[in-house]
Amino acid sequence: MAKPVEPSAFLDACAMRQTATVPVWFMRQAGRSLPEYRSARGDASILEAVRDPALVTELTLQPVTRYSVDAAILFSDIMVPLAAMDSGVQIVAGRGPVIEQRVSGESDLGRLRDLEPEEDIPYVIDAIRLIRNELAPSGIPLIGFAGAPFTLASYLIEGGPSRDHARTKAFMFSEPSIWERLIDKLADIALAFLRAQILAGAQAVQLFDSWAGALSTEQYERYVFKASSKVLRGVAELGVPRIHFGVGTGELLEPMANAGADVIGVDWHVSLADVRKRVGRPIALQGNLDPSWCLAPGKQMEAEVLRILREGSATPGYIFNLGHGVLPETDPSTLARIVELVHAWNPR
Amino acid sequence: MAKPVEPSAFLDACAMRQTATVPVWFMRQAGRSLPEYRSARGDASILEAVRDPALVTELTLQPVTRYSVDAAILFSDIMVPLAAMDSGVQIVAGRGPVIEQRVSGESDLGRLRDLEPEEDIPYVIDAIRLIRNELAPSGIPLIGFAGAPFTLASYLIEGGPSRDHARTKAFMFSEPSIWERLIDKLADIALAFLRAQILAGAQAVQLFDSWAGALSTEQYERYVFKASSKVLRGVAELGVPRIHFGVGTGELLEPMANAGADVIGVDWHVSLADVRKRVGRPIALQGNLDPSWCLAPGKQMEAEVLRILREGSATPGYIFNLGHGVLPETDPSTLARIVELVHAWNPR
Repeated sequence: MAKPVEPSAFLDACAMRQTATVPVWFMRQAGRSLPEYRSARGDASILEAVRDPALVTELTLQPVTRYSVDAAILFSDIMVPLAAMDSGVQIVAGRGPVIEQRVSGESDLGRLRDLEPEEDIPYVIDAIRLIRNELAPSGIPLIGFAGAPFTLASYLIEGGPSRDHARTKAFMFSEPSIWERLIDKLADIALAFLRAQILAGAQAVQLFDSWAGALSTEQYERYVFKASSKVLRGVAELGVPRIHFGVGTGELLEPMANAGADVIGVDWHVSLADVRKRVGRPIALQGNLDPSWCLAPGKQMEAEVLRILREGSATPGYIFNLGHGVLPETDPSTLARIVELVHAWNPR
Repeated sequence: MAKPVEPSAFLDACAMRQTATVPVWFMRQAGRSLPEYRSARGDASILEAVRDPALVTELTLQPVTRYSVDAAILFSDIMVPLAAMDSGVQIVAGRGPVIEQRVSGESDLGRLRDLEPEEDIPYVIDAIRLIRNELAPSGIPLIGFAGAPFTLASYLIEGGPSRDHARTKAFMFSEPSIWERLIDKLADIALAFLRAQILAGAQAVQLFDSWAGALSTEQYERYVFKASSKVLRGVAELGVPRIHFGVGTGELLEPMANAGADVIGVDWHVSLADVRKRVGRPIALQGNLDPSWCLAPGKQMEAEVLRILREGSATPGYIFNLGHGVLPETDPSTLARIVELVHAWNPR
């Protein structure tokens, strides 16, 4: 189990301990909004970039240096483990993951196998070691992540991003037992991916269920909960905080918390006060500034940041973040201003 | 005010009167899922088709004939009034509305003017008269519709469909007074569009706020509520039921009801029992079968239909529908089977 030598406001907040300042980081803080990112990444595809530990280290550290955020998040992609076992998995710029051979039935299950981190994704392990080394003096923790089984299944079944996830749902409705085998296999892969990251040095993990918001509470509980729970509970013994996040998941907060989360990532649809009521037990929260506010710098944006800070820090265990990834058109000076506001806020 | 001579289960349910059977219709029932639609529409674009009253009549009546649904919905598009005043508004097959000249500031407001139904959209008025004439013997009512101001604003500002509506939100956050003028003007247009449809013979109307689900409750109340309310309250005196519908709007049900709705259209994220609790006053409900269920015919789909019927008909004022439009790949025999199940259900 990795323990930071330096105190970390981020790790303290994950554990619901009172902190002197509210910790802050941004989903997709390492990304296209940063000029130094665009220049370092050049023309490499995301999957190429991810396979270069020195580049991953540079991209992961850029926002830490620029913004003084309280956590680094590994530059990676939720499709990395699937791409490692299937060369037909690509990430197309401006579109997202694209799968050459869609999963459409039982016979496709054989294409999924166990992830062998040392052989399949050695570059991820190497990158994490390099990053931890660089971060050691500051004590800034590193967050690892994985895509949740439902979201991975949706990419495999739809063949790419989808608005309605109709094919995925039709699959789970029509073939519940094949669906269960598929999503269980994806849970194993996500779990192995997170374990490998933690063992290499990640001090917290986030499970991204980007598309779970397409589901009703009942659908989530019947078809998805068990698999996500397997992932989160599977890393419990490693003792790092587990963040569970989705967009449009206001109806799913309780089961998403109960799946084994220490921290619930909240988008902007629901207020943090309402989230606390819905979850029904004390839990650390992360979020919930609408990323669109970052395109509207100035007094109104600042008022919104302060409103969220007030609500978030009403109880210990709050991490400031956006409700979704940084939009590429965001001006880095806006994020810098947000960090300044968050760090100036007295949470007690 | 248009009053049907024949009794209508649909209109009775809108008024929360007990009905002998549960009424049913499907959003996008006139559309690509029907072979007779594909053959009648041929290569015409949607906007061309909409301008042909005989074709509109045929397309509107096709699902009524095939499925014996309890209401017809005008074959049209929410962009029709905007396309009538701006030739740069197009609907691109497989993509959706595309706006040549995006609205990006105050100077663009001048491009929006009042809708003059007799001059701008005479073909809509003609089509409604033709359809009412055809429907008269059966007493099946005709539903008209319009896009809600926020959804129209999003298309104008984004220039087309958007996943995050970030540009639209940045506009409303940064320029609240210009935003208010824009959305108020769009409210006037939507109101004039609905009034014209009702005066021509539409016996109910639905306001589609397709994208409102991108908003938090607070954003909806601050930036959108007033305009949608202007539309719905503006047609109150005409005495036809007003349905208010959006997707992913579980957090907005109360303000959407309070905007002047007689019926709340519910997607599949929230159960009908929960919707009743959230709205906090008796209101008619319409929905809420996930359209993806229609790709999974058989026993499981039927069980889901029955579950929703049980929940929906617990109180008078329930209209069966999908939680969103019919998916193009839906087999018409599945919808026929659903109508059969709904009509066989005893709601008392």
